[in-house]
Amino acid sequence: MEKTIVLASGNEGKAREFRAILEPLGFKIVLQKELGIDSPEETGKSFLENAMIKAYYAAEKSGMWALADDSGLCVDALNGAPGIYSARYSSVDGEHGDDKANNAKLLDDLKNVPNGKRTARYYCALCLVRHKDDPVPLTVLASWEGAIGYKEIGANGFGYDPLFEVTGRNCTAAQLPPQIKNLISHRGRALQALTYKIEHNLF
Amino acid sequence: MEKTIVLASGNEGKAREFRAILEPLGFKIVLQKELGIDSPEETGKSFLENAMIKAYYAAEKSGMWALADDSGLCVDALNGAPGIYSARYSSVDGEHGDDKANNAKLLDDLKNVPNGKRTARYYCALCLVRHKDDPVPLTVLASWEGAIGYKEIGANGFGYDPLFEVTGRNCTAAQLPPQIKNLISHRGRALQALTYKIEHNLF
Repeated sequence: MEKTIVLASGNEGKAREFRAILEPLGFKIVLQKELGIDSPEETGKSFLENAMIKAYYAAEKSGMWALADDSGLCVDALNGAPGIYSARYSSVDGEHGDDKANNAKLLDDLKNVPNGKRTARYYCALCLVRHKDDPVPLTVLASWEGAIGYKEIGANGFGYDPLFEVTGRNCTAAQLPPQIKNLISHRGRALQALTYKIEHNLF
Repeated sequence: MEKTIVLASGNEGKAREFRAILEPLGFKIVLQKELGIDSPEETGKSFLENAMIKAYYAAEKSGMWALADDSGLCVDALNGAPGIYSARYSSVDGEHGDDKANNAKLLDDLKNVPNGKRTARYYCALCLVRHKDDPVPLTVLASWEGAIGYKEIGANGFGYDPLFEVTGRNCTAAQLPPQIKNLISHRGRALQALTYKIEHNLF
């Protein structure tokens, strides 16, 4: 029997990534907005807590399994900022900012930080719950090491990708082909770890 | 430099287990009650969420790294109960019940459940945070398979251990010597996984 999972995200790009990996395992992915489900406030202190808040909310509203992700960028010279506020970093009203404004703010915040001190990493937390009171949510956290450059380079990806110089590769995340990014990125590896746990029934 | 970790637990038995494993790694363990820190309400829906609530609370109150665990027993025939309510299963006022009353209630709930249908597992979630707003808490979840017997056997351990027949061993958890239990139990393996992550700096 095919199992349906509600994806607690409105992002079509993420939905595509999740479908590509989870549908071959026998899961059907529906977006929460297709079911008329809104998004809860992300009041958590960590990527993981925010992913849990979103997954439990979607499970409660849908009565189905629900999967949520929460991800962001932590810059060492900024003491971990923008962190869980990555999507709303340049925002003044607490709503999601746009990528251009977020990237501009990040460059400005780092304008006096020299090469070698601009290290950063992306994080992705995933949470899969089977019902609204699931005592053992399936969770993973993965990270991706890099450094923040001096200008936007590359047209793929989204968010801070044009500024994120991937450690060990002579390019930014926005210069990677999607299929390569999906293999090595924070979200790609989090999904691989989640898949492993689902396949081995590690709830 | 020795790093101090506040243990968000009042249980001396647990403190002993945590000290035995973490002090050789250069950590000093203090109990939150030694610092005059109380316990927050455990309002989470999962072991992991409760561990996170307790760890963040202790980090906020102490300004130090904080470690919390939350654990319990899920019985398949009871649809996962007592689950996150394991410690207060027999309680009428929401406070922690005592082991004897909890075990008696569990036996009663299972009185019509035959051999072979009494499978269960212990879970242990751990959460370590480095400050009150840590965006990437270090978390682990481990489980331990068994079945619920028909009477209490054994004098070691605590909680449901005298009823918990360990899969693959001809005894209950309460019959295991502590050093063996600490190797193979849900909490022992969760601590081993946490240790691995700390040693490899997998935040």
